[in-house]
This record gives sequence, C-alpha cells and structure tokens, in this order.
Amino acid sequence: MSEVREKAALAKSAAQVMNRMTTQQKNEALLAMADALVEQQASIIAANAEDIERGRGNGTSESLLDRLKLTPERIHGIAEGLKQVVELPDPVGLTLESFQRPNGLRVEKISVPLGVIGMIYEARPNVTVDAAGLCLKTGNSVVLRGGSAALASNQRIVEVLRAALESTALPADALQLVEDPSRASVDEMLKLNGLLDVVIPRGGASLIRNVVENATVPVIETGAGICHTFVDAGASFDMASDIAFNAKVQRPSVCNSMETLLLHESFAAEHLRSLADRFLTASVELRGCERTRALVPEAAPVSDTDFATEYNDYIMNIRIVDDLDQALGHIARFGTMHSECIVTENAENAANFMQRVDAAAVYHNASTRFTDGFEFGFGAEIGISTQKLHARGPMGLPALTTTKFRVFGNGQIRG
Amino acid sequence: MSEVREKAALAKSAAQVMNRMTTQQKNEALLAMADALVEQQASIIAANAEDIERGRGNGTSESLLDRLKLTPERIHGIAEGLKQVVELPDPVGLTLESFQRPNGLRVEKISVPLGVIGMIYEARPNVTVDAAGLCLKTGNSVVLRGGSAALASNQRIVEVLRAALESTALPADALQLVEDPSRASVDEMLKLNGLLDVVIPRGGASLIRNVVENATVPVIETGAGICHTFVDAGASFDMASDIAFNAKVQRPSVCNSMETLLLHESFAAEHLRSLADRFLTASVELRGCERTRALVPEAAPVSDTDFATEYNDYIMNIRIVDDLDQALGHIARFGTMHSECIVTENAENAANFMQRVDAAAVYHNASTRFTDGFEFGFGAEIGISTQKLHARGPMGLPALTTTKFRVFGNGQIRG
Repeated sequence: MSEVREKAALAKSAAQVMNRMTTQQKNEALLAMADALVEQQASIIAANAEDIERGRGNGTSESLLDRLKLTPERIHGIAEGLKQVVELPDPVGLTLESFQRPNGLRVEKISVPLGVIGMIYEARPNVTVDAAGLCLKTGNSVVLRGGSAALASNQRIVEVLRAALESTALPADALQLVEDPSRASVDEMLKLNGLLDVVIPRGGASLIRNVVENATVPVIETGAGICHTFVDAGASFDMASDIAFNAKVQRPSVCNSMETLLLHESFAAEHLRSLADRFLTASVELRGCERTRALVPEAAPVSDTDFATEYNDYIMNIRIVDDLDQALGHIARFGTMHSECIVTENAENAANFMQRVDAAAVYHNASTRFTDGFEFGFGAEIGISTQKLHARGPMGLPALTTTKFRVFGNGQIRG
Repeated sequence: MSEVREKAALAKSAAQVMNRMTTQQKNEALLAMADALVEQQASIIAANAEDIERGRGNGTSESLLDRLKLTPERIHGIAEGLKQVVELPDPVGLTLESFQRPNGLRVEKISVPLGVIGMIYEARPNVTVDAAGLCLKTGNSVVLRGGSAALASNQRIVEVLRAALESTALPADALQLVEDPSRASVDEMLKLNGLLDVVIPRGGASLIRNVVENATVPVIETGAGICHTFVDAGASFDMASDIAFNAKVQRPSVCNSMETLLLHESFAAEHLRSLADRFLTASVELRGCERTRALVPEAAPVSDTDFATEYNDYIMNIRIVDDLDQALGHIARFGTMHSECIVTENAENAANFMQRVDAAAVYHNASTRFTDGFEFGFGAEIGISTQKLHARGPMGLPALTTTKFRVFGNGQIRG
C-alpha cells in the first residue's frame, strides 16, 4: 500500500473516534499541541534550518526563504494561534433543525465533522499547525500534504504534534503528514474517494488548478482572486483614492488585493491624473486602456490577458468605463467571484452593484482587503472559498462540518 | 461553438437576469409553465409516442417504457407539481447573518441563486419539468441533459415551457435543453467551468460514477444507496419485521430501500426463520452468511461483492453479527452513507448507533424509506445528496442557493 493510501486509511479509522470527542477533549489536545510546539522549538528550528539551507542551495529567493523561516517568535505566534482556536465555539453537535412529522417521526438535523480532510498547500510551515488545529477542533481527521520546500520543518512539527496527542484523548492517527514530496502523492490524494471526504487546496493558481482539474474527491476551491474596484461618477476623491490604494498596495501578494481599477469616465477626467501619481509614487506599474493612456502616458497598454491575470504584485490595470453597466460587464467577464468593490455616493448604483455582482463578497465604500476570516470576526480561517458549493468567502470552523439527519420513530413504515 | 457551450453561455447570460427576479415573477412563470403543459398536452403526448415507439423498436423493456410514457393524467400531475413549487417559500434573498464589526463595517450574509445548474439525468420526462421548476423558482438558470430515450418528449416539453416563459418576466434562455444525445455532450458539460456553477447527476450508478470521475465543475453527488437495517438483541419482532419488510419490499428500485439486513445473533436465533419466510413469500431472493444459511437453507451464499451492490431489486443480503460493533463495522465498510437504521429497545445502543453511523440519515425504529424531501416535509426534492459538501440527504429548494457577503462601509481601509 502506498504511503498516501495507508495514511489516509489510518486517518479514516481515527475519524470514527474523532467524531465522538467532546469539546473539552479537543481543546485539551490543542493546548497540549501548543505547549509541545514551544517546548520542542529548538528541534523544530533545527529542522527548519535544513529546509532553509536546501532552499538557499536551490536558489530560492530571499523573500520566499523568509516566509519559510521559523524563529522562536514565530513558533510562539503559531502556538498562540492554536490557543485562539481553543477559545472558539465548537461547531459540532449543534441541533440546526428539529421538527416532528405528522406520522410521529421526529427529525433532527445536527452538525457533524466532515470526516477526513485532505489539505494540499505550499511553503509556509505555519499552515501545517493552523490546519491541524482547525481540523481537530472540528472533530475531523486531516491528511496534510505540504510543499517539499518545508518538508523537514513539517515532518518535525507533525512529529511533535502527534507526540502531544498521545497524552490526550484524541487519536494521534487523526493527524497525518504525507512525506512523499513527488507530484504523484498529490495526484493520488485527489482520487482517494472513500477515504478522503474533501480536499482543500491552498496555494498558487497552478496548485489550485491542478486540484480542481484532477480531483474526483469533492474540492473546496480557494484563493484565486482577480478583484476590482469601481469608482463611480461623483465619488469622493479622497475615499476612492484611499480605498483603491489600500486594495492594491497594502499587501499585493494576497488574493483579496485589487488587480484592476475601473473608473467612471467623469471621475477619470477629473481625478485619474492625481490618482495615478499616487500609485506611481508607490512604484506601482500601471497598465491602462487607451483612454487611460491618453491621461496617463506612463501606463503601458493593457491586454485582455492582463485583465485575466492575478498579479499578486505591484502592478495594476486601469480601465475607464462609460457607466456602471460597463463596469459590471467587465467584472462578470474577468472577475473570479472573490471580492468586488464600488465606491459611490449614488445609492441606486450602490444597490445595483451589491445585487448584481456575483462574488463571495461585494463592498460598498470599503477596501476588498477585508475579505478575511479574522476581519469578519470568525476568529479563524481555513481559507477563502471561491466556489459556490458548501462555503463561499472566508471559511471559519463551521465550513469544516457537514450535517446528519437523525430520525426517531416507534415503528413507522412508509405506505 | 458546440451546442452545449452555446446553450450554457445563453443560460449564463440569463442567470444575470434570473437573480433579480422577484418571488412573484418567478411564481407567475411557474404557473404559466404549468398551464402551458396542460394546454399543449396533445403535442407532448404525440412527441412522447415517438419515444415510446423508438424504444419499443430498440427492445426497451415494458417497465422502462411505462416509466417513459406520458398520459393526460401524468401531465396533469406534473403540472400540479409545478403549482406545488409555487406554494413553497422562496429561499433567495434571505439575510442569513448580519453583524457590525468594530471598525464600523456592516456585513450581511444573504442567500443568492447558485447561477447556472447543469442537470444530467435519465429516462423519465417528468424530471425535465421538475428540475426546470425547482431551478427557476430558486432564481437559477438550468441546462438540462436528459436521456436519449426521452429526447423527443423532452424537446417538446422544453419548447412548450420556453414559449410559456416568453409571456413572463423570466428570460426563456434560463431554460436550456441539450439535444445532442451522444456521450460527448455529457463529457463537455462536465468540464464547463466558468459557465456551469454545479452539475447534479440523477440516475443509475454508472451515470453518477461517470460524472463524479470526470467533472471539473463542482458536483452534488446523488443517489447511490446501499442501506442497512440492523435488528438488535431484544428488538420487538413485529416492529423489526415490519420495518425491514417495508425497507426492502415497498419500493426496491429506489435508493433509500434496504439491501442488507443485519441481525444480532440472539434475535436471529429466535426469529430469523419466520422473518425469512415473510421475505420468501414476497418472492425476495435471499443471500446469506454461513450462520444465516444454517437457519435458512433457501438463502444463497453471500459475497463481499453482494454486500457492495445496490440491487434496486427483490434481492436481499442477510448477515448475522455478534453485536452492535460488528454491525457498525459492516455499515462503515459497505454503506454508501445514505440511510441506515437500527431497530432496538436498548437506549444506549440506539444512541451509539445514531451517533456513530456516518450517513445522511440515521433511523431509530423507522424504515429507511423515509429519506425523501417530501417525507421530510420539504415540499420538493431535487435529489438526495450522498456527499458531505453543501447539502446532505434530501435536498429541498435551499440546496439550490449559495450565499454572498455584502459589506457596507464609509471608507474603511485595512491597516
């Protein structure tokens, strides 16, 4: 049996114990995990140093190496994250609906764990701990498949966490790490119907595309965000400038940052030049439509390919549109249904935008950067779903549960 | 552009109108559809006669032909079904959550249509109308791909329904029928990411397997049901016999019927013989474990393949188990997480079973045949989900919606 299948089978067996764990048992386990990470930090940092050294040898960029790097402070922060999950309400075992049928059957719909969750992700080793904490808190088993760049770190972290579980009521087998760094192990996970109940990919566009295109296990798609800000005629310049600048510049590498700024022609005529200067001063590369370039010659020509690209970088497209409808058409064509914003003082246009844009989150007069489980007050985030089934937008703990109907009778049969 | 892609694109354009339709507009459309079916029944029955004749020529069994056949009474019943959907509450546009963040952002989570639903199904033309009604009522567009055996019926029905929509506020393009009867049209639908938001297969195991294995569009898996009834030690003979008999015999062709009867050894020792006689008298073919065959020599030997087969027929497996744990192990191994039942007077065993069995619906002292949207009081059913994401068990109208976060600010940016 392959490593992947064997570990998934162990996780599935453990899931049948996990779904009976009480909130207290799960919380005690998370606290034990947090303590163990801090106690064992020296060995974790030593393993991490191997990953860093190998990465440097491979020519990995210093910015990526920095994301990979673990320090005592970062490990402390990761452990604190587990403790925060302990404080969150347990979404398992809630009676979501309860009703009696005329024939006397009593039907209850209750929240239950999903079962076994496969997580496929890239570099940063903090995801290993976060995902373990969130999945175990919700009564699930989890099979982690992190990026090969962090393999030594992930191996040591999971060793530490599993050892911590041994002293708790939770089965250590509920936490599994796939150590095979080859693409084959991912491909195998994607087809493990019957062992994995869901696969959640977290990472870049190509990782997510591979999962969506090849998985037969149900997937929760996360991440890709081509987000727009549309500035309407008559919008406040200061507000529009601040929101657009924040959406693009505050953290360009993340999915809820803006890629394309859509401007009503009348706003653009008055304000585009000074708006563009703000971005240029911040070293944002501009790509614009012809009308944009007439006002901002520094902008390079923009193509449909640009409009369809998630830059995750200091690059921004600008397009001038005739009206709201043209903006809506652009968003419908190029958006990824993640986060979309309108800046306007016109109530009717705002209502239209909020109603008609098909996205996980739509904003009126606020930055798209707020699409985030912590910013929404969920206290945790397993990812941001960009699909419509099961969960949409920031996913807190309830996204890691499903439901079960319990039906109580006294001999009812169907006539 | 292929037929499938062209029709899906039309459906997607129409979805942007559909999601703004009011409850009244949608209900008026469904009533117009119901009236048109009755008014145009002669032409529908004529088209159906072509299907019947072609089917008879192909050697289709009379029982399948009967399922395919439309009569004035059946068309009247189908139209009545649409009128019942009119009476159901509209699940779209509900504010499911609403909260204010410390920074002043107001966040609303509202229910919205899924968008464009692909339905892939087999013979019976009533599904064409049912699916159209449920999808339109929930503000979705739908692309129907029915079985080739009902093609002429489906073509005429959809023609009638689209003509009826012309007189309403709803865009006729929200309702599309794929007419290409080849397997290629199904395969193409399964990959239409960006045009279809979800695919729902309804039909036999091979249809569903093909969809699950090949779709890159998110799927709601429905249908396959290997359901068990476990009769515990000390269960009432009459109750156990009635529940098991109902679960197997009342309608063996459907997914919530029982395939395998699990008997505690002490119950079996006392009652198996008379229980078996009841099934044999009803011409149910029995396949049993060795201990079963010692008591019921008429039973053929049962194999693991039998335990893993959804017969949908008058065939039943019987296995004698030592205790509840062995029954739970059998269900975990062979069940399809659809519907599972325990018949017992032992409260602790009942609680254990209801907690530990991982299925869409678990029953204490009632027939598994109740897993059904109408029996649960949902007033409609688009199918029975056997997956854990999005919807589990009988799916009523809310299963055809997703959610959207609307965020209202006054210039908030992220710090």
